[in-house]
Amino acid sequence: MAEVVTTQLEVRWGECDPAGIVYHPAYIDWFSVARMHFLRENGLPYMEAFHAAGIVLVVLEVTCKYRKVLKAEDTIRVEARLAERTRTRMALRYAVFGQDGELCAAGRTEHAFVDMNSNRACNLERKAPDLWQRMAELPLSDDRGADGPGRRG
Amino acid sequence: MAEVVTTQLEVRWGECDPAGIVYHPAYIDWFSVARMHFLRENGLPYMEAFHAAGIVLVVLEVTCKYRKVLKAEDTIRVEARLAERTRTRMALRYAVFGQDGELCAAGRTEHAFVDMNSNRACNLERKAPDLWQRMAELPLSDDRGADGPGRRG
Amino acid sequence: MAEVVTTQLEVRWGECDPAGIVYHPAYIDWFSVARMHFLRENGLPYMEAFHAAGIVLVVLEVTCKYRKVLKAEDTIRVEARLAERTRTRMALRYAVFGQDGELCAAGRTEHAFVDMNSNRACNLERKAPDLWQRMAELPLSDDRGADGPGRRG
Amino acid sequence: MAEVVTTQLEVRWGECDPAGIVYHPAYIDWFSVARMHFLRENGLPYMEAFHAAGIVLVVLEVTCKYRKVLKAEDTIRVEARLAERTRTRMALRYAVFGQDGELCAAGRTEHAFVDMNSNRACNLERKAPDLWQRMAELPLSDDRGADGPGRRG
Repeated sequence: MAEVVTTQLEVRWGECDPAGIVYHPAYIDWFSVARMHFLRENGLPYMEAFHAAGIVLVVLEVTCKYRKVLKAEDTIRVEARLAERTRTRMALRYAVFGQDGELCAAGRTEHAFVDMNSNRACNLERKAPDLWQRMAELPLSDDRGADGPGRRG
Repeated sequence: MAEVVTTQLEVRWGECDPAGIVYHPAYIDWFSVARMHFLRENGLPYMEAFHAAGIVLVVLEVTCKYRKVLKAEDTIRVEARLAERTRTRMALRYAVFGQDGELCAAGRTEHAFVDMNSNRACNLERKAPDLWQRMAELPLSDDRGADGPGRRG
Repeated sequence: MAEVVTTQLEVRWGECDPAGIVYHPAYIDWFSVARMHFLRENGLPYMEAFHAAGIVLVVLEVTCKYRKVLKAEDTIRVEARLAERTRTRMALRYAVFGQDGELCAAGRTEHAFVDMNSNRACNLERKAPDLWQRMAELPLSDDRGADGPGRRG
Repeated sequence: MAEVVTTQLEVRWGECDPAGIVYHPAYIDWFSVARMHFLRENGLPYMEAFHAAGIVLVVLEVTCKYRKVLKAEDTIRVEARLAERTRTRMALRYAVFGQDGELCAAGRTEHAFVDMNSNRACNLERKAPDLWQRMAELPLSDDRGADGPGRRG
């Protein structure tokens, strides 16, 4: 299993704003793409592994720090890591790199495991033991953020 | 019941592209907003009237002609009209007007009535007679497009 | 001048995802809409006040905490407040309320004042003294965030 | 030079709507991605070839016919072809294919060459003779649409 899963994307014209740079919510969308790749690469495709088990990943919190602007047609690389995992929630963190390998943004998303039927937060181990088993095996990165210990304090 | 339903919107920064004008797919999104208003104003809120009856409106075709660019923070007006209606499909057309009342774009969408369970096109009168009854009462505009016969001719 | 500027929006179909709820990056887009309203209501329309003075507001950081899901056609209210202001940057915070007045999300954005020509962060007082003068008069809210001690407590 | 340029994409979660299928304006966004690839692959990268020459491609018309729904994580292929070319405008057409090679949608966009300074339509041969020269060499497909002569009449 992979601790880091990397997604390569090309910045779309429609993701940029009148300032000529990527509109900042687009990064949050890229995090979703990267998150689904991370899960799929690690044997847990979202629709099959979570939805089929009656689990929705509900976003609790999103953070993104922007360091360098990106433009249309730039080729970027988004790294995703599992930053936190409990029986009720998980967090991933992401780093976005530009064409020359420079860090352009870093972010983090936190998710609750929600029971699709009751629409309530649930304990994944109890609700879907097999899925939890596989989740529990995923390699965990420390949660200092891509921009290092100094940033999140 | 209203033959024309008008939706007022304000162009968002994120709907504009690096050329400083509205990114053209945004108009298609506005058509959706205007369509849902049209249905709701005419007593057929999409979720309650269609979804609850097991019907999805699947888009078959979209057309949009662009005449004048729009920019962030522009106040616009989108008019929606029912252009066509049969037991298996319907079409709406739309006109987008700028702050000074000038026509900025005109479009049309065509939709099939699809049975949510079978995932197949269906006859609305047979599948949901009450809904069809109300659909049948909706005032119909002629389908020449907002810009009239002189434009395409 | 207004310490709080409220923007009313209606959730769009296209802002929702296959889970039937608002796709989380949409909130960040709403923050932009609310921020531009906040500035305009306080006499500082973005294009005229900032762009015309050669200043771009570059986003440095975005945070959003999600508390309650929202759905298509929900009417929401987004409150924006100025949370921080120095000669080189500013921060706003936002609260998103649902139809029954319940807090659905709370967030914060931080922005640098960037010189459009040099493309570098700048001191607003030096670069655009008139604009700074008006910025300096904007009422400032404390920056505990909507989920700060008084609110979630 | 390539008559057909193919772009491979993966459907994003955020491109899908509460019906669980791709929200229809997303296809129009894909057409933009495919168009920029088409131009770049043929030696005419949009920013360098057009913008640098003071030319903006303004969209005049968009059409899309939807034949088969697509879902999150589907791998798709978008083909772009030059369908029409004069000194003042050009049109491209697009075909979107699903994982099994089935045609899912077909569309067309029409664009005017607009002078960035005057903001008016212009004659490309006069305004940017070198660019026109290269445009004139691009292989042209017939403009019957991907779904054949019977559909457009």
